[in-house]
Amino acid sequence: MLMGQMMDAPLLVSSLLVHAEQYHGDTEIVSRTVEGGIHRYTYAEAAARARKLANALTQDDIARGDRVASLAWNGYRHFELYYGVSGMGAVMHTINPRLFPEQIVWIINNAQDQIVCFDLTFAPLIAVIASQCPTVRMWVAMTDRAHMPELKVPNLICYEEWIGAQSDRFDWPALDEKSACTLCYTSGTTGNPKGVLYSHRSLMLHTFATCLPDVFNIGARDCVLPVVPMFHVNAWGVPYGAAMVGAKLVLPGAGMDGASLYELFESEKVTVSAGVPTIWQGLQQYLQTNNLKPSTLKRCIIGGSAVPPAMMQTFENEFGIKIHHAWGMTEMSPLGTFNTLKNKHLTLPEDQRFAVQTKQGRPPFGVQLKIVDEQGAELPRDGKAFGDLHVKGYWIVDQYYGVDKNPLVDGWFPTGDVGTLDPDGFLQITDRSKDVIKSGGEWIGSIDLENVACAHPAVAQAAAIGAFHPKWDERPLLVVVKKPGQEVSKDELLAMYPGKVAKWWIPDDVTFVEELPLTATGKISKLKLREQLKDYKLPTA
Amino acid sequence: MLMGQMMDAPLLVSSLLVHAEQYHGDTEIVSRTVEGGIHRYTYAEAAARARKLANALTQDDIARGDRVASLAWNGYRHFELYYGVSGMGAVMHTINPRLFPEQIVWIINNAQDQIVCFDLTFAPLIAVIASQCPTVRMWVAMTDRAHMPELKVPNLICYEEWIGAQSDRFDWPALDEKSACTLCYTSGTTGNPKGVLYSHRSLMLHTFATCLPDVFNIGARDCVLPVVPMFHVNAWGVPYGAAMVGAKLVLPGAGMDGASLYELFESEKVTVSAGVPTIWQGLQQYLQTNNLKPSTLKRCIIGGSAVPPAMMQTFENEFGIKIHHAWGMTEMSPLGTFNTLKNKHLTLPEDQRFAVQTKQGRPPFGVQLKIVDEQGAELPRDGKAFGDLHVKGYWIVDQYYGVDKNPLVDGWFPTGDVGTLDPDGFLQITDRSKDVIKSGGEWIGSIDLENVACAHPAVAQAAAIGAFHPKWDERPLLVVVKKPGQEVSKDELLAMYPGKVAKWWIPDDVTFVEELPLTATGKISKLKLREQLKDYKLPTA
Repeated sequence: MLMGQMMDAPLLVSSLLVHAEQYHGDTEIVSRTVEGGIHRYTYAEAAARARKLANALTQDDIARGDRVASLAWNGYRHFELYYGVSGMGAVMHTINPRLFPEQIVWIINNAQDQIVCFDLTFAPLIAVIASQCPTVRMWVAMTDRAHMPELKVPNLICYEEWIGAQSDRFDWPALDEKSACTLCYTSGTTGNPKGVLYSHRSLMLHTFATCLPDVFNIGARDCVLPVVPMFHVNAWGVPYGAAMVGAKLVLPGAGMDGASLYELFESEKVTVSAGVPTIWQGLQQYLQTNNLKPSTLKRCIIGGSAVPPAMMQTFENEFGIKIHHAWGMTEMSPLGTFNTLKNKHLTLPEDQRFAVQTKQGRPPFGVQLKIVDEQGAELPRDGKAFGDLHVKGYWIVDQYYGVDKNPLVDGWFPTGDVGTLDPDGFLQITDRSKDVIKSGGEWIGSIDLENVACAHPAVAQAAAIGAFHPKWDERPLLVVVKKPGQEVSKDELLAMYPGKVAKWWIPDDVTFVEELPLTATGKISKLKLREQLKDYKLPTA
Repeated sequence: MLMGQMMDAPLLVSSLLVHAEQYHGDTEIVSRTVEGGIHRYTYAEAAARARKLANALTQDDIARGDRVASLAWNGYRHFELYYGVSGMGAVMHTINPRLFPEQIVWIINNAQDQIVCFDLTFAPLIAVIASQCPTVRMWVAMTDRAHMPELKVPNLICYEEWIGAQSDRFDWPALDEKSACTLCYTSGTTGNPKGVLYSHRSLMLHTFATCLPDVFNIGARDCVLPVVPMFHVNAWGVPYGAAMVGAKLVLPGAGMDGASLYELFESEKVTVSAGVPTIWQGLQQYLQTNNLKPSTLKRCIIGGSAVPPAMMQTFENEFGIKIHHAWGMTEMSPLGTFNTLKNKHLTLPEDQRFAVQTKQGRPPFGVQLKIVDEQGAELPRDGKAFGDLHVKGYWIVDQYYGVDKNPLVDGWFPTGDVGTLDPDGFLQITDRSKDVIKSGGEWIGSIDLENVACAHPAVAQAAAIGAFHPKWDERPLLVVVKKPGQEVSKDELLAMYPGKVAKWWIPDDVTFVEELPLTATGKISKLKLREQLKDYKLPTA
């Protein structure tokens, strides 16, 4: 085999920070801190502190492949951990603090974390779990001496003292690019959480893809604020992408309410943001109530759950903010698809263009999609057939951490989502396969049903689930949360369906609730909802 | 070492075409053909034909690593060769047909090409060289039977018949990503040309970088027309980048004059184009003479030589086209730097902003730059110190093809360019190191001198070279080509310098010529110019 004769260098996360320091050294990273107030510094300062951290880890005998965990919001010390831990060869393990304490204990023990770094918010949690985590040698409070919490755990360390004593000189090692870089557990609604172990290579290729013009589209002119937490699939890769292109980065800490976000959007001149739909619902309410409009924010990337089309229209028409639908999973680093229109869509009539925009989008180079039927046979890409979505690519899980069972089917990862693919490669998720409503052996997509209801001005949230029916096994039941002080009746809602979905898809009933149960990542938990409504009696039954 | 647990797949050029076919199957590739007229088809059709070609190569015993050469313009058959040859594991060797026949023979023999594919334009050249190329088993005319040339060479093949008989089913092999993918020779002004052997990996990482928002910034909404030839460093990677993002691709064939380009820009709604300055000078003249303005073209990427600032202003102010300065080399695949302003530059006063825009730009992630003095010591990044530019990165040459000598200095590639780096990472090339004017032991940058002269409305082209001086060894001599029908005097030109360059940099004399000698890639040949003017007597001597 004739080999190419180009320089050989591994794809490493540390290289991103080296690049940002060298060519974007004075670009800012701004954080809303847990201690209160705003912290601002530059990529050059972040890089120097990440090297101090790498020296501290080395001194405390953290070796390549060892796991170092975080329980933290989006902030500059978390950013330093991202680069310092992975850069020196250890594995950055981000833990979702919204999980139940027993799940967190399980995850720390499963990962055999040696150090856990935590924001002050989580000091009470650490007090509860510390004694149950035998592998953890050090508990690092991510703060300075003045703010150290009263906490009785062995080996409690102050982050600022820990790294403060170190030199800021450190040569990032030339690691194997396929070595482990970060670890993130799925919030699995059933069974134990499962760890996904990203490699430097998979994250670096993912980073290139996320920055592309048809994906996050970020450059050195942008100011990016990831609302999506850094404990949730690496904040969708934004902390890596921003360094790759030299974008200003704004980290909102714990303040994810509409008022806090709006304040940062304006004060820091944010141009792009990213998060789950519930965040943007909160922002929308805040902006409308206070009659405000962000002045620099032009694009929002929304994933994690389907975006209600009505919200997409409000953002575009009232606020001048373009919403880009994205879809992915922890197992996909997470980028699967991103909705950016093609040239051919730009001249479509508005309603047709909008129909494309509400889909989950198309895959960037690096991800392949197919939909299959229950026998595993590939279904047509006609925008109509819907089936189980399988994916393949450079940044998709091959094997769960510490689990022997191969999760793949013929080399493809079965996502558990159900959807359609159109001839242009646009994916539309119709359901989680476990949430599909099965009526008389046929599938009904719950998301379509929810989107119709969400278009009603009095509806805050809607969820469609299958309720028991003696003849059809299941029939759709619509569960609705009304907006404060607004009214809508069952008949009004049901009258919205004819002409928008097949006749036999129309819900058999509507029930109104005060709130919908959520998962640890802030999505509506259909599992809990079905549990709550398991004895619901449909009027048609 | 703990390894990541993500899917493992090599970075291969063939994957780009698979992606384009699957997700952008109906996006067009439009070519101006050598036979006459416009050819248009889609990525899906191109992919099917590339697979036919791979089958033809396999049937003709082309093995992995074998070299298959092209002597061709930018056109759809050349595009098929790019993917078919590299995709099946052979090496695509693009030859610059503007070289002298003896250089082409030398290159074919050095590369040991087994097949040479050529556009009809070059049939007379093939007639001259065929007998001197013993390794070439097949000469493939890139046309159909009706247009086959009268040519007496053994094993003359008709491309359309060759691939027409084949199946369009072919499974692209899972090659080692570091195996050789394409081969391109530098047009070395001194000594024999040297081959640069790109790997699949280096080209794929280069492709990601070229598509980024701060670099070519291309997506599925764009229509890209590379004027830069596909025989010149893979047309700067555009044929790969367009497939990665699903952009429409327009290939202009041999028609690189202003009229032909303008016609394609308008008929195909081109949004982005790329080429060397002389091309854009031709276009500028055509547009101004005919009082035209492209309607969809918004960005031009210019590299290969420094862009005269006056031209940059004309394009921006008169045509509404943004010019992005780029810099690179065959040895760099070619992307080294690209000029896109940072956020901080957007609020600068216009003249200061423009001063940044005229620099060669900053490196994307993946390229590192440093400037060193004659002893190899690194010089400050202050925008003032200038020295030899050294580079390092994923897509930079490690070793020339078939040359044992290591071209690197401490692991860095010395570019032979001289320039400054500013604190924001912006490179400004002041000269080729061999073109630097050495006056009394101090360096004078010829490009600065040329830019001042080019701002005069009567100047078409200017070159500054060192002319012999008994006291200072060399003093600057300005060589000027006037625009047709326009006049300018020596004194007028020299009066432009005070205040723009150091006093001792001002040229000692100006001489007017009808035309400047060019290299095979269309750049001004300072070597030939110095040779032509070696007996020039300066008035100050």
